[in-house]
Amino acid sequence: MSARAGIVVTGTEVLTGRVSDRTGPWLADRLHELGVELALTVIVGDRPGDMAAALRFMAAEGMDVILTSGGLGPTADDVTAEVVGRFQGREMVLDEELSERIAEIVKPLARRWPSLDREAIAAANRKQATIPAGATVLEPVGTAPGLVVPPQDPARGPTIVVLPGPPRELQPMFSHALESGALRSALSGAVAYRRGTLRLFGIPESEIAETLRVAERDGVALDRLEITTCLKRGEIEVVTRYGPGDEEAYAALVALVRQRHADTLYSDDGSSVDEQVAALLRGTDADDGRGSGRARSIATAESCTGGLLAARLTDLAGASDYFRGAIVAYSDEVKVAQAAVPAELIARHGAVSAQVAQALADGARSQLRADVGVGVTGVAGPGGGSEEKPVGLVWLSVATDEREQLTRSVHLPGSRADVRDRATTVAMHLIRRALTA
Amino acid sequence: MSARAGIVVTGTEVLTGRVSDRTGPWLADRLHELGVELALTVIVGDRPGDMAAALRFMAAEGMDVILTSGGLGPTADDVTAEVVGRFQGREMVLDEELSERIAEIVKPLARRWPSLDREAIAAANRKQATIPAGATVLEPVGTAPGLVVPPQDPARGPTIVVLPGPPRELQPMFSHALESGALRSALSGAVAYRRGTLRLFGIPESEIAETLRVAERDGVALDRLEITTCLKRGEIEVVTRYGPGDEEAYAALVALVRQRHADTLYSDDGSSVDEQVAALLRGTDADDGRGSGRARSIATAESCTGGLLAARLTDLAGASDYFRGAIVAYSDEVKVAQAAVPAELIARHGAVSAQVAQALADGARSQLRADVGVGVTGVAGPGGGSEEKPVGLVWLSVATDEREQLTRSVHLPGSRADVRDRATTVAMHLIRRALTA
Repeated sequence: MSARAGIVVTGTEVLTGRVSDRTGPWLADRLHELGVELALTVIVGDRPGDMAAALRFMAAEGMDVILTSGGLGPTADDVTAEVVGRFQGREMVLDEELSERIAEIVKPLARRWPSLDREAIAAANRKQATIPAGATVLEPVGTAPGLVVPPQDPARGPTIVVLPGPPRELQPMFSHALESGALRSALSGAVAYRRGTLRLFGIPESEIAETLRVAERDGVALDRLEITTCLKRGEIEVVTRYGPGDEEAYAALVALVRQRHADTLYSDDGSSVDEQVAALLRGTDADDGRGSGRARSIATAESCTGGLLAARLTDLAGASDYFRGAIVAYSDEVKVAQAAVPAELIARHGAVSAQVAQALADGARSQLRADVGVGVTGVAGPGGGSEEKPVGLVWLSVATDEREQLTRSVHLPGSRADVRDRATTVAMHLIRRALTA
Repeated sequence: MSARAGIVVTGTEVLTGRVSDRTGPWLADRLHELGVELALTVIVGDRPGDMAAALRFMAAEGMDVILTSGGLGPTADDVTAEVVGRFQGREMVLDEELSERIAEIVKPLARRWPSLDREAIAAANRKQATIPAGATVLEPVGTAPGLVVPPQDPARGPTIVVLPGPPRELQPMFSHALESGALRSALSGAVAYRRGTLRLFGIPESEIAETLRVAERDGVALDRLEITTCLKRGEIEVVTRYGPGDEEAYAALVALVRQRHADTLYSDDGSSVDEQVAALLRGTDADDGRGSGRARSIATAESCTGGLLAARLTDLAGASDYFRGAIVAYSDEVKVAQAAVPAELIARHGAVSAQVAQALADGARSQLRADVGVGVTGVAGPGGGSEEKPVGLVWLSVATDEREQLTRSVHLPGSRADVRDRATTVAMHLIRRALTA
């Protein structure tokens, strides 16, 4: 890969974790599609000194392109444009026309908040329109303009692309940046690499480690593949980057994983369990895209996940085609009144039990008139655990009209948030199994 | 602040954004409590070269302590311990006893997966027990041991703390690291800084920028304060760090913000709207901790948020004390059958309307027998928008037995995920208003 890129995320709020960076990951994917290797990401506070140090570091490591996100706001702690200008040896100049365009953009704000201080807005405009001389302006999607700032000597030093932090502003503005000549030349000669993703559910990471050792013994050309494995929301993801000509090596790896882990490998095309469940519900799951042809509706009745499973099932656009609704039955009274769980089941077996999970799944189906019903009940913690029913114990059940009800329990580690999140992943896989012939 | 720290997050899965870093933010808070300033975070892939470069960068920037997270797994792409050892000029040695302790830890795995390959586990143990000579071992919480690796010359160079990536392993192990003499000496002389947080809802960031300019004019000693403002889930957060002796300057800033933004400043003690709503529902909201004394139960009926509001209300431990349940009414049929929304309201005004939001709030109260009912209905997008009811339009309503029902609409920008998330924030603030005398 000939072009290397680094990302500098600015903002004390990101550095201190009060805001999580959602732009770096997106940029990483775009760079990869362009055949540009993302080598480093640095997160710095709103301190000019640390920001400049990060730019020096990236330049010293030979980055062809540096992308910065954030630090373009109207407040004085937003200094990215100025620091980048100085780093590239360019003075800051007020772009009057840009300032006027920004003024146009923020006019609606004034309507939305009539009490708004005109002076505040004008000062913000001027600050945001003061840019390094010779930089290419990326028109604002929000109120902050982006910049492509080339090095003084085109032959040496990185081109710096300055973007705002909010993803909905950064993403279209990065596309505009790609159209700028300065950036194109910096990226010239990049070779597009391939990426293959395998997803497995229900085995420990050490099993994949062993499979990779076996692959080496079996003469799979692992040296041609850049393989990373990670645990992600309770699943194992094996992502492999490989260059043109190494398709065979990757195919050999996939074949070996499929052979050794047939029962736990559920995705080899990058599709997530969420996407697979959506396709199964739409009846478009088969490779020909037409699938079983049978569309099914789904509903959930949840206790410990508190609506997270419903939220996850409605994450994807168009979910209303198959998602009917959910009952979040936190109190036993709601379990009985809304999800039609027989009170004596709760009395006899307790709210966290196979029987209540099954009754919740049945209740979701019958009460919300869905083809598929899902029930989840467990102990999310940190309190409420017992010897017999410890924190992390979750019972799940999926009811359909086609086959016997699938019910299982898991004991999930971690915090309350971990248990709740992990339980939704287990539920998604149980739904997938119930809908897979 | 005398001690500076840097964090190196390793893992191509984090760099490429397939896994979001949850450890950096937590470490940032711990460091702050210790009076250690987090200056830089670098995210690198599982490449020894880039990882070593990040360590050199941190050392060159004068970090007293470097914390690494991740790269301690059993797979060959996990190389952190080795890279750190080399950087500190220490050779790698197999710690037999540690290897045996790890073997004990992973025994349960073998029971859980009887098919498990013994050889795979043994090899993983040996790899994870090979550590730099002279390093202090942090006992594994998962299977990976952590390390405190001091510099060869105690007088110069950073102490490096090597921690695993998973938060539930990293967090307790960092506490153990603090007990190690090597780390204590590296952190000696740190001065604990204060941090104050102001949260505002319902004004643009430019208003805060202007308030800061006014503060400067009014002679507030802003130069003594490190102020960062950020937009976070639709709210404005103003975080100020200040040293001993600068309490007055901060108090003056807070007084000015309270005076200029009385109607939108909702938190000056770091409390989130989630915590305030929980306290209001428990009836423990007043400063004396006893509050209004009236405990209230709450329930939601949600359409476009798909359960996210219920999930958010059950985020905090002990939510079952006040949260009764929720109806996720995605289909109109469920709105009518479960949430008791009159069908003709939907027919006359449409599912996304003030009337249906109010009926959902009423339905949540009556059907789930709660003191407080919340209704949310909107167009999350990307499809389903119209001239009259565009994507991002959300109607919200809160019904109580104490006061007139609060109903409002917002037009939220951004993606489907943004709209869904932002709508829950607006709902939390509407609940807060409804419960605030």
